[in-house]
Amino acid sequence: ARRGYPEAVYCEGKTPDQVGSIAAAVRARPDVVTLFTRAGPGHAEAVRRELPDAHHDTDAALLAWPPEPPAPTGGLVVVVAAGTSDLPVAREALQTARYLGRPTELVVDVGVAGLHRVLGRLDLLRRARAVVVAAGMDGALPSVVAGLVAVPVVALPTSVGYGAAFGGLAPLLAMLNACAPGVAVVNIDNGYGAGHLAAQIAAHIAAPPPAGER
Amino acid sequence: ARRGYPEAVYCEGKTPDQVGSIAAAVRARPDVVTLFTRAGPGHAEAVRRELPDAHHDTDAALLAWPPEPPAPTGGLVVVVAAGTSDLPVAREALQTARYLGRPTELVVDVGVAGLHRVLGRLDLLRRARAVVVAAGMDGALPSVVAGLVAVPVVALPTSVGYGAAFGGLAPLLAMLNACAPGVAVVNIDNGYGAGHLAAQIAAHIAAPPPAGER
Amino acid sequence: ARRGYPEAVYCEGKTPDQVGSIAAAVRARPDVVTLFTRAGPGHAEAVRRELPDAHHDTDAALLAWPPEPPAPTGGLVVVVAAGTSDLPVAREALQTARYLGRPTELVVDVGVAGLHRVLGRLDLLRRARAVVVAAGMDGALPSVVAGLVAVPVVALPTSVGYGAAFGGLAPLLAMLNACAPGVAVVNIDNGYGAGHLAAQIAAHIAAPPPAGER
Amino acid sequence: ARRGYPEAVYCEGKTPDQVGSIAAAVRARPDVVTLFTRAGPGHAEAVRRELPDAHHDTDAALLAWPPEPPAPTGGLVVVVAAGTSDLPVAREALQTARYLGRPTELVVDVGVAGLHRVLGRLDLLRRARAVVVAAGMDGALPSVVAGLVAVPVVALPTSVGYGAAFGGLAPLLAMLNACAPGVAVVNIDNGYGAGHLAAQIAAHIAAPPPAGER
Amino acid sequence: ARRGYPEAVYCEGKTPDQVGSIAAAVRARPDVVTLFTRAGPGHAEAVRRELPDAHHDTDAALLAWPPEPPAPTGGLVVVVAAGTSDLPVAREALQTARYLGRPTELVVDVGVAGLHRVLGRLDLLRRARAVVVAAGMDGALPSVVAGLVAVPVVALPTSVGYGAAFGGLAPLLAMLNACAPGVAVVNIDNGYGAGHLAAQIAAHIAAPPPAGER
Amino acid sequence: ARRGYPEAVYCEGKTPDQVGSIAAAVRARPDVVTLFTRAGPGHAEAVRRELPDAHHDTDAALLAWPPEPPAPTGGLVVVVAAGTSDLPVAREALQTARYLGRPTELVVDVGVAGLHRVLGRLDLLRRARAVVVAAGMDGALPSVVAGLVAVPVVALPTSVGYGAAFGGLAPLLAMLNACAPGVAVVNIDNGYGAGHLAAQIAAHIAAPPPAGER
Amino acid sequence: ARRGYPEAVYCEGKTPDQVGSIAAAVRARPDVVTLFTRAGPGHAEAVRRELPDAHHDTDAALLAWPPEPPAPTGGLVVVVAAGTSDLPVAREALQTARYLGRPTELVVDVGVAGLHRVLGRLDLLRRARAVVVAAGMDGALPSVVAGLVAVPVVALPTSVGYGAAFGGLAPLLAMLNACAPGVAVVNIDNGYGAGHLAAQIAAHIAAPPPAGER
Amino acid sequence: ARRGYPEAVYCEGKTPDQVGSIAAAVRARPDVVTLFTRAGPGHAEAVRRELPDAHHDTDAALLAWPPEPPAPTGGLVVVVAAGTSDLPVAREALQTARYLGRPTELVVDVGVAGLHRVLGRLDLLRRARAVVVAAGMDGALPSVVAGLVAVPVVALPTSVGYGAAFGGLAPLLAMLNACAPGVAVVNIDNGYGAGHLAAQIAAHIAAPPPAGER
Ligand SMILES: Nc1ncnc2c1ncn2[C@@H]1O[C@H](COP(=O)(O)O)[C@@H](O)[C@H]1O
Ligand SMILES: Nc1ncnc2c1ncn2[C@@H]1O[C@H](COP(=O)(O)O)[C@@H](O)[C@H]1O
Ligand SMILES: Nc1ncnc2c1ncn2[C@@H]1O[C@H](COP(=O)(O)O)[C@@H](O)[C@H]1O
Ligand SMILES: Nc1ncnc2c1ncn2[C@@H]1O[C@H](COP(=O)(O)O)[C@@H](O)[C@H]1O
Ligand SMILES: [Mg+2]
Ligand SMILES: [Mg+2]
Ligand SMILES: [Mg+2]
Ligand SMILES: [Mg+2]
Ligand SMILES: [Mg+2]
Ligand SMILES: [Mg+2]
Ligand SMILES: [Mg+2]
Ligand SMILES: [Mg+2]
Repeated sequence: ARRGYPEAVYCEGKTPDQVGSIAAAVRARPDVVTLFTRAGPGHAEAVRRELPDAHHDTDAALLAWPPEPPAPTGGLVVVVAAGTSDLPVAREALQTARYLGRPTELVVDVGVAGLHRVLGRLDLLRRARAVVVAAGMDGALPSVVAGLVAVPVVALPTSVGYGAAFGGLAPLLAMLNACAPGVAVVNIDNGYGAGHLAAQIAAHIAAPPPAGER
Repeated sequence: ARRGYPEAVYCEGKTPDQVGSIAAAVRARPDVVTLFTRAGPGHAEAVRRELPDAHHDTDAALLAWPPEPPAPTGGLVVVVAAGTSDLPVAREALQTARYLGRPTELVVDVGVAGLHRVLGRLDLLRRARAVVVAAGMDGALPSVVAGLVAVPVVALPTSVGYGAAFGGLAPLLAMLNACAPGVAVVNIDNGYGAGHLAAQIAAHIAAPPPAGER
Repeated sequence: ARRGYPEAVYCEGKTPDQVGSIAAAVRARPDVVTLFTRAGPGHAEAVRRELPDAHHDTDAALLAWPPEPPAPTGGLVVVVAAGTSDLPVAREALQTARYLGRPTELVVDVGVAGLHRVLGRLDLLRRARAVVVAAGMDGALPSVVAGLVAVPVVALPTSVGYGAAFGGLAPLLAMLNACAPGVAVVNIDNGYGAGHLAAQIAAHIAAPPPAGER
Repeated sequence: ARRGYPEAVYCEGKTPDQVGSIAAAVRARPDVVTLFTRAGPGHAEAVRRELPDAHHDTDAALLAWPPEPPAPTGGLVVVVAAGTSDLPVAREALQTARYLGRPTELVVDVGVAGLHRVLGRLDLLRRARAVVVAAGMDGALPSVVAGLVAVPVVALPTSVGYGAAFGGLAPLLAMLNACAPGVAVVNIDNGYGAGHLAAQIAAHIAAPPPAGER
Repeated sequence: ARRGYPEAVYCEGKTPDQVGSIAAAVRARPDVVTLFTRAGPGHAEAVRRELPDAHHDTDAALLAWPPEPPAPTGGLVVVVAAGTSDLPVAREALQTARYLGRPTELVVDVGVAGLHRVLGRLDLLRRARAVVVAAGMDGALPSVVAGLVAVPVVALPTSVGYGAAFGGLAPLLAMLNACAPGVAVVNIDNGYGAGHLAAQIAAHIAAPPPAGER
Repeated sequence: ARRGYPEAVYCEGKTPDQVGSIAAAVRARPDVVTLFTRAGPGHAEAVRRELPDAHHDTDAALLAWPPEPPAPTGGLVVVVAAGTSDLPVAREALQTARYLGRPTELVVDVGVAGLHRVLGRLDLLRRARAVVVAAGMDGALPSVVAGLVAVPVVALPTSVGYGAAFGGLAPLLAMLNACAPGVAVVNIDNGYGAGHLAAQIAAHIAAPPPAGER
Repeated sequence: ARRGYPEAVYCEGKTPDQVGSIAAAVRARPDVVTLFTRAGPGHAEAVRRELPDAHHDTDAALLAWPPEPPAPTGGLVVVVAAGTSDLPVAREALQTARYLGRPTELVVDVGVAGLHRVLGRLDLLRRARAVVVAAGMDGALPSVVAGLVAVPVVALPTSVGYGAAFGGLAPLLAMLNACAPGVAVVNIDNGYGAGHLAAQIAAHIAAPPPAGER
Repeated sequence: ARRGYPEAVYCEGKTPDQVGSIAAAVRARPDVVTLFTRAGPGHAEAVRRELPDAHHDTDAALLAWPPEPPAPTGGLVVVVAAGTSDLPVAREALQTARYLGRPTELVVDVGVAGLHRVLGRLDLLRRARAVVVAAGMDGALPSVVAGLVAVPVVALPTSVGYGAAFGGLAPLLAMLNACAPGVAVVNIDNGYGAGHLAAQIAAHIAAPPPAGER
């Protein structure tokens, strides 16, 4: 694993055959976690042919091998999806953090149009050492969450939306201009990058931030 | 007045002399309210020379004559400024609605990074027949407000911010992608347009929306 | 229904199965109108299997259940389509306003290249409490209509056009820069949002605007 | 003169001294009309020092020498300015066409928000062999005019407007997407180019288009 | 025919059935030329079923009925395609001008990378009353042609190219910034618009421009 | 201080008088660190008049009061400036992290065009718990640094550069597309935001990451 | 061959039949190398039917005939692919340079996230007379390579990446802003153009640059 | 000098004092050529105070010391300016190439609107080993020149132009899409980069390309 981290294989743009060959080579290194991201059905089949016990999260379009993630260390990573359409990208982030060895929790469908939903999850959010917030359309949720917690918020813009969302440009710009400090932006739909960053932030620490800081 | 509305004179790009001539001509029509918008100090002086009793809101860079707005009719227009930097544009909206004859209220510094502030003004917001929300940077506030009230929200993006705010483009796109329905977007920094639209929406009605609808 | 409004299910990006499950759940709540928007043939079939009497407007790619809209209250909403290609988006706006409980009328093919056509419908336009104008290409029609009526115009840019229309960007920018006041812009192809906004504007009022105001 | 046309000296970005030297050289060629465009006060003074009888249109920021335009030949060029802010650019177009030898007429302040104004000038517009329409903001006027006349309309976007006008981009895109055929677009604020094109179109013809074609 | 011009039916985005119904209605008006543009194989079949003798230019994806164009009047329209990939769009322009009643000529594959090719067609180009130049990629050809002829050049950007051509944006911007005067720009791939404009420019004149003007 | 963090006053767009009033009010709260960012000479003078012992970092255009930062806790924050022109923004980040209570180090002029320079500082970089990398132009340095260290890299694009740097857009996009994981992007020139985020990441931990992880 | 160079046939956008006809015509000119670029399976089959011994590089989607490249002359061209996804475009560049008569070498998977990989190939890179660097995402590699060699670097942005890579725009801008001098940028995915340019640079010279210059 | 090349000091964004200090330090290294680029009058004065015999090219806003360029070696670099407004940037390129040790020639005012001008300089152009072409507006000249010569053309877009030139974006895109191979693009207004690249291309060769290749 590059720098002690899991190896990641980005399947999009590779043929199932190419992915299969990589999976075959991976079998020789059970000490390193390998993630296959953006894996379509054909890719998944090719991986499972070589690594039959690989874990497959179909929603996240991700496979992991060996199937068991490391025992969780470091602080909690909470992954938030603004809407159900943001779920695939959010789950990619969550699985990445989990296979990098962090404890993780998922929160879904807490868009800013219904504030009570995000406010209802404040306890969980405040237990986190890093929060990933996946949102498309107006990308407003990371600003709101960053105002509610004292730890870094990884803002993950998604291409959910149409028209003037311009494939995720609208939430990306909104997140770069978040009016609360402590927001770390990653590329559009880059669940893997968001999960990796959150796992790095939450590494080497177990305790929640002290209450006084909130 | 065009279609019964006040006449508006956009001063930017006109010389003080040109504005002064228009002001002189206006004096003959005290039955129509005339607004001078985007009026710098030189413009203001030129207007006051011809119309000494004109009302001058220096924050809004706007003058109005005759100085007294019409007696308020229709529903309440609440104008919200996310931050203090959004105040000039917000005040331009407020004055426009006021001189079109609506009752108005102003709410300042209720950005989404501190949700308690906007939640603390919910009673006022829910008395409105139309709400104007001026915000720059991430432009997240109109989505939040539209989720809290049942009446139309006029989203007014401002050029407040820097870098990837791109002169107001970031909040403009966010507002066009607002995840709550009932959001009406106007041009960047267009306080006059926002106030005019809100006044049109709130015309011909006095009662607040029935409680059941919230 | 959130805040007394109909519930909306955005089908694009959902599988027919997912939509079918939502439809099954909806059956238990006949007191709330549910709209299924952007419903392809597969989605429609899935809805009809669970809610056989759902109303299906194929042009608008929309289903509604219960099939009967509420008895109309509030002011008239007129929906204008600049060209026949703007019709699907325009009909989505119209159905949304209708199922939110407004009386509605449709006007088609009145582009600015033939002014007599829009001028010929002036009587109807002036009876409206809110006008939705759907237009692609140069997006010029909302400016023209807003100059002809005293009530708010909801400008609905469509992705109709090619080349430098850039997927609706050209009409979107034109509408944001409308040279007549009283124009409320929504996202490209967002018929649902336009109809919802118009219905909110026209709520709680039955009388047309007084003649003197025009 | 290049190809029999007047010579044009673009002053912006040149020092008054450089422009003065060109003016001195021009004196030797009274058979060719020379236009000095985008001439600030300093440029104008430098030209007048060398060519004291040069014609100076301060609104258009243009000087011409010899001061007398050629006797008009070809068809009528009508130049239309949507608003008074478009006037400088419109006048640059008009003077260019005039010094290329066309008969010209100017029409001002006929924006689409008040259709009666442009409809009131229909007779003049229909006498033209080419119409230049200068407009900023929503750039809607060329579409409307092109629908009213049978001859080419030169659409001249101006940088008038703010916010999402993006320095003339909004009207430029609108004009490129004009929904009436017969619209020829030039660069933003390019009055010289618009006037030159219109003069080329109207050359070698005197008669108005036959009535039957409208 | 709108204003004496042929009627145009834009097939893209219409079903073959819809196009067939229009074709059936057209049959009653043989006095007007009708053009079906952007017609795919299905559209073409639907038209031919109703109007079996319609002329079909498959390269231009255009059908015309009645099949015979009017007897040519006015000046010559020369249509130039920079490369063979620009040919479909160029032919659409040519057919449009031809069915509007102009004499036309086509020149192909004269890109600026081999100047001798365009210089070799100078005689033909100088006989034109209007020249349409279709070009993608760097969009350099209209500037070159406009420097060689004294009549208007209609610059027709095409979406030919890739990468930083951005779907025709690169040649569009180049053409708007053409360094020779007399260039009229139309929308990307808008062969119909270019041909229509050229036909309007060349109407009512038969003689070539006098030699002295070149 | 909002949430236990220092209070920040953004001076740009405020008058010296307004900043002076805030400084006067601040005097009553010596328990909270207040930062005045983007402070021009006039702003600085106004602050110093009220808070004579405020610390003034002229390069960073920042003042802090009380002048002494908190005793450092948490992990080391290393701030890297690719070139000397990136120094002001880098220093703003450094001071922000320092006044939030982190130990900090600065590394200057280690652009990727001379790799030996950044490689020569590897020991220091690997002692950090968070690294801020400020870079303009091609924005390549964060990718390189993220490949060399195991902790999060806060990528801070600057508006240094010209032409196709488009005010920082080029490095912003490069950083969002960093080919190494663990990169957190903030807004262009947003030194305050970068320092704040790095300080949050490095809070509550003192030990460097274990050697095995590199 | 145009100017002594190979003839290139761009297959994308041509039918297999059209490409086949060109291949048939080519058979008569074995003295000129012809390259068929961007050739899909259908195109390749059509070429092979006419020119059965044509060389087919399936990775590069390129065919060449006659199959033997000229004997290598001039300096060495090294083609570098940052990642394996950049390989097709890199190979197109390499084959183009090879069939223009240069000696060539390929270096793969040396992205900046693992500097040791590019540093490990320094000897080869410094033997080159021109280096082509193909990279997507952050486009950082050309800056790094240009800092390591004294000869020109042809920067070849690829559309590899997603989200804010915007189809290659991000690496394109990064490369145009390369912080080391000596970088020559070509269009996105334009392997043919990069190889051609490198071959021109390396023509007429065999010796490596003298050691002192590095 | 970095890698044996002259040292360059980019003055824009530095104070005269800072530039003066660099100049003082430079005095100790007469063996290396130092270029001060983008030097305003204040910068120039500061340099001359320390290095009184420095060569100052005011048009290029560049100073060089020692004043004598190296004896020319390698192939000829020809720098072409499309218009007189492109001259400052073109001269910066020329001086850079000259102080890197190449023989240089300048060609001015050969825009594509008058082809005879560039064709009249063909002999000189064909003697070059590298040609720099500076052009704004439509950026068409590099395509034309690249079609006329067999050596690399360095395309140097300038910010000359207005409106839809968008600060050099239009010529930049045109040059990236040049329809002749052999075009190397650099950043907008980057005369230094263009001259440096051309000098690298033309290094180590004296002979002109053999005649047969043209
Ligand atoms: N056609 C539409 N266009 C835009 N937004 C829509 C549309 N239909 C539904 N919506 C919005 O999307 C929400 C439903 O999203 P979902 O929960 O994914 O079904 C609704 O509350 C509406 O605000
Ligand atoms: N106002 C203007 N806008 C655009 N182009 C102009 C203008 N005035 C002159 N030109 C063009 O610029 C050329 C003169 O440029 P120059 O040689 O720099 O003086 C003329 O041949 C015209 O084509
Ligand atoms: N240099 C800076 N860059 C970006 N944001 C800043 C900066 N300085 C302060 N801020 C933010 O702006 C807010 C202060 O804004 P204001 O209330 O206008 O003084 C702070 O809470 C910070 O979140
Ligand atoms: N006019 C210029 N345009 C672009 N880059 C330049 C220019 N002059 C100098 N440079 C680059 O900037 C570096 C010097 O920057 P600095 O260290 O800030 O003086 C040089 O090594 C060149 O690579
Ligand atoms: Mg926070
Ligand atoms: Mg609401
Ligand atoms: Mg109106
Ligand atoms: Mg017309
Ligand atoms: Mg011409
Ligand atoms: Mg790392
Ligand atoms: Mg180098
Ligand atoms: Mg060449």
